[in-house]
Order: sequence, then C-alpha cells, then structure tokens
Amino acid sequence: MVHINNDDIDNFEHLYRINLINSCSGYKSANLLGSKSLSGIENVAVFSSVTHIGSNPPMLGFFLRPTIMLRNTYENIKATGFYTINHIHETILEDAHHTSAKYKSSISEFDKTNLVSEYKNEFLAPFVKNVPLQLAMAFVEEQEIKANNTILIIGKIVGLHVNDNLLEDDGFINLAKGKIATINGLDGYSVPKQNKRFGYQRPK
Amino acid sequence: MVHINNDDIDNFEHLYRINLINSCSGYKSANLLGSKSLSGIENVAVFSSVTHIGSNPPMLGFFLRPTIMLRNTYENIKATGFYTINHIHETILEDAHHTSAKYKSSISEFDKTNLVSEYKNEFLAPFVKNVPLQLAMAFVEEQEIKANNTILIIGKIVGLHVNDNLLEDDGFINLAKGKIATINGLDGYSVPKQNKRFGYQRPK
Repeated sequence: MVHINNDDIDNFEHLYRINLINSCSGYKSANLLGSKSLSGIENVAVFSSVTHIGSNPPMLGFFLRPTIMLRNTYENIKATGFYTINHIHETILEDAHHTSAKYKSSISEFDKTNLVSEYKNEFLAPFVKNVPLQLAMAFVEEQEIKANNTILIIGKIVGLHVNDNLLEDDGFINLAKGKIATINGLDGYSVPKQNKRFGYQRPK
Repeated sequence: MVHINNDDIDNFEHLYRINLINSCSGYKSANLLGSKSLSGIENVAVFSSVTHIGSNPPMLGFFLRPTIMLRNTYENIKATGFYTINHIHETILEDAHHTSAKYKSSISEFDKTNLVSEYKNEFLAPFVKNVPLQLAMAFVEEQEIKANNTILIIGKIVGLHVNDNLLEDDGFINLAKGKIATINGLDGYSVPKQNKRFGYQRPK
C-alpha cells in the first residue's frame, strides 16, 4: 500500500493533486444541471456533487465555487429560483462531459453538443431530453463553506420524471436499469450493470 | 415516463418516500467511517454522503442528522477531532451495510461484523483493515442546514493509504480496479467493472 501524507499532498503538482483528491472520495453522482437566465439563455452543465440532504422535505444539495467556475448555473439559480437535475446515462456520456468546458454565458451548451432541451409542465428551467430521470428543483438556501469559499446550494424536489421501468414497487429507482452513470474523479465515467439490495438492518 | 409532483411526494407512504428520494439523486459514495470515543470504544458506520469539497486544502464533507441517528460517529468526531474514511469494496458489502443497524454506543460494530480495525502511523481513529483505500481525516468545521437540521461535517485529508494497483500515473485513483462499490438509494450496492476517461474539455 502507498502511504501519502499531509506534506506529500501539499507538494504534488497541481494536476496530480486535483486528480488524486477528486477521486479519493469514492463514486459520485453524474448529473446535468439545467437552468435559464432572465434573458432566456439556456445553460446545462455537468455536476458530480449532487447529494441527498433529506426526504421530508425532499431536498438535494450540490457544491460549487461561484468565483472560479460554473458561474452561469449559480447566477441563473439565484436569479430565477429554479433548475433541473438530469441523470447522465450511457448514450450521452461524451456530450455530458463536454459541458465542463468553460463557455461564455452568452453561449448555450445545448448549441455546442447533441443535448436537447425540453420543457415540461410549465416549469421555468430546461430539462435534458431523453434522459431516464429528470428532477424539477426549487432553490431553498445556500451555505458558505468558510474553509475554501465553496457554496452548498440546497434545493427542494418539486417534480420528478422517471422512466417506468426504473421505478420499482417500493419506490426504489433502479439506476442500473436506466444505464445511469457514476463519476470517478474529474473525468472517469462508469455505468454499473446491476445492483444488490441488502434491506433494512437491525442489531444482531 | 411517470410524472411525480410535489403533492404526490408529500402523500407517499413513509418507506416508499424514503426509497424514492434516496435513490433519485444518482449514485453515491460507499464509505465506512471509523471513529473512537474518548473512553476508547471503536465505532464504524456506513455513509453514502461523502463528497468532494475542494483540493487545496484537500477537504471532504458528509451529512448527518445527529439528533436522529448515527450519533456515535458525530460525538466521537467532535470529542476527538479525528476519523477515517474507508472504501466499501466487493468482499465486505454485507458487513458494511450491517453497520447501519442502530447499536448502542457501548457496542462496537467491529465486534458485530467480520470488519477488523487497524491503526496506522499513530493516527487516533481506527481504519478498516484490508480496504483498498483508507483516508485519515481531521475535523475542520460544521454547517447546519436550516431547512431540516442536517449537519454538514467538513474534514481535511491528512493521510491517504491506497493499494498500489489503483493509483495511476497522473494521480487518478481507479476505483474500478479496487472493486469499490457505489450505493443506489438506501440499500442497493453496485460494483462498477470499468471506466472511461474523457479528459479536460475546452470550448469547441
């Protein structure tokens, strides 16, 4: 086993360090966040930090560094209050990852990829078409992480569109059946083929 | 496609609702957090919310609801300042998931499963032995999520132990090579077999 200590991490070259630290937390969610500016310009961007916050009320969070990157998503959410979370699946991996390129706010990533926007139920923000799981989100609160100026955005799930074959009898959404991806590090994508459920555990 | 709206979510039976909301965010990290009380009782518990916060300083976060569950991990971290993050891999799935059972603080999950604790480099908190990736963490700060009293715990990575065959030349840790698991919902585990890397993206 390799042992990497505090000093090693501090002294690694920039790219080595961001690869290492971004891949050491484990598998991450693979989502496209859709939003729209007040002037009507659509935005879609890959995020790997969407995390469960609570079921009642139903809330998810994600992290961003608004001063450094991904400002369009942040500004659109703050301006309009709404965004979508769309799951990256096997057939759109390359286009989804390309949304990480730093385009100007006047350019929509929908115009630079084969990703197509769609609108449902008069929800303000664009969904990504033909994705097996799409969530309509309303902004709730933001928290600043003091140690590095990262911002945690919390949103409430106000709508959920899911392909029939993914939704099981007990409410479990089977991500493997939707060929939904998971992210390893900054640019690695895996598509799990199956899963095993172990049920609720009680003390032995 | 099934459309589930705000009212539907509010009216679902409890178990259906928690299965749905816990599986709709996408794949989650699969980690065992190790900690120790001031009186020396070891604790190990499964978490699926460990998330990348930043690379410089190297920080990870995770969420918990200290008033409802998993109080041992929270109390130990606050009392000692240290904990470990250990990656759940193919051969320990069942034991890892069993740590979600609600044992009293006087009982160590290491005594109720085949998981074995180990100590390295005089770090206070126990690691889980024979795991391909182990992180030594120091508590940095906590943030309260007002909307549901969840707490976000931020920690700094102060040490990293990784099996040689997972660590690639550019710092990327290949989780698939370690047969590391990812979590779907509350109790579904997948072990991705491979990944594809797409590299850094620039505007076209």
